[in-house]
Amino acid sequence: VPKQVDHQERRARIADAVLAVVARSGLEEASVRHVAAEAGVSVGMVQHYFRTKDEMMRFALERVSTGVEERLAGGAELSVRELLRALFLQLLPLDKQRTREGRVALAFLAYAAVRPEVGGELRGKARGMREHLTAQLTGAAVDPAHAATGLLALVDGLGMQVLSGQLEVDAAVGTFDAYLELVLGSPDGTASRSG
Amino acid sequence: VPKQVDHQERRARIADAVLAVVARSGLEEASVRHVAAEAGVSVGMVQHYFRTKDEMMRFALERVSTGVEERLAGGAELSVRELLRALFLQLLPLDKQRTREGRVALAFLAYAAVRPEVGGELRGKARGMREHLTAQLTGAAVDPAHAATGLLALVDGLGMQVLSGQLEVDAAVGTFDAYLELVLGSPDGTASRSG
Repeated sequence: VPKQVDHQERRARIADAVLAVVARSGLEEASVRHVAAEAGVSVGMVQHYFRTKDEMMRFALERVSTGVEERLAGGAELSVRELLRALFLQLLPLDKQRTREGRVALAFLAYAAVRPEVGGELRGKARGMREHLTAQLTGAAVDPAHAATGLLALVDGLGMQVLSGQLEVDAAVGTFDAYLELVLGSPDGTASRSG
Repeated sequence: VPKQVDHQERRARIADAVLAVVARSGLEEASVRHVAAEAGVSVGMVQHYFRTKDEMMRFALERVSTGVEERLAGGAELSVRELLRALFLQLLPLDKQRTREGRVALAFLAYAAVRPEVGGELRGKARGMREHLTAQLTGAAVDPAHAATGLLALVDGLGMQVLSGQLEVDAAVGTFDAYLELVLGSPDGTASRSG
């Protein structure tokens, strides 16, 4: 009996090779040829599972975002402050895995900026997260939708500045905590001292 | 008398071709070959002016940031609030030129994230801007360094979300204004109503 091919496993193995190549050398090196070499499979095999570079990139990013979501889901009973802080720390290059994922996410955003159809997928995910937070930020110091949009933009902006070498991790964490307190009040539940 | 070659003009023409290619198709298309075709010159000519892709990318980004700085310099007597708002609006894709520049900046950040030596150059520029703002934010609702770092991260994070199709321009501008008021107080000089 011939051994059955596990297609899902193979697809995942190729996607992991995409992540490794992008994180190490950037998007412009993520050719089908380089990905095949990284995964130890033929070019034809890569093309069998991903007909276009777009498909390959999307599946790879999906793996990153699923990984982040799974790690965040461990804390289902987190407060909104804890959730935002956990999300932020997931994006900082604090270890090898997060460095890799952060680089891939940033590369993918640059990729999406010139491909409106990819941006459309991101839009749905981003809106879902903003709405989830908005519903929980009714006590914030600004309009809840603005509070949610701004805190998520801080997560992205600070994370991107750290990843691209513009900002130190400590300064990013200190700034994020200061803004959390400004928008949500101090962690012990009393109002912010800033008013 | 043979006409003298204007090297600076040629270099600039090639850099503009880099910007056009990156903004249209992303970093991974910015090969020497594609740039030469876009500029209407030979591959050898591109290589004469830029020995490596790194040199080419850095010069192109330098042109973007010089352009933004020149447009901002028109308002030397801007208040810190006006400066931040002008900087923010420069990065939003409100017209063709800004769309192009924003895409190039985002692509370059992804490029820098996997090249520490490029990140080093960005670091100097970013630190200079943060220090300039920090000195002017002594009256902010949080520590001035955190205020400056956070507002610049909001500029980047909101801009990136708009460019990559995750957020609408109006929502980004509304959020930025709400955070400006929260951190700096209301525009007419009275304290923020949020405290």
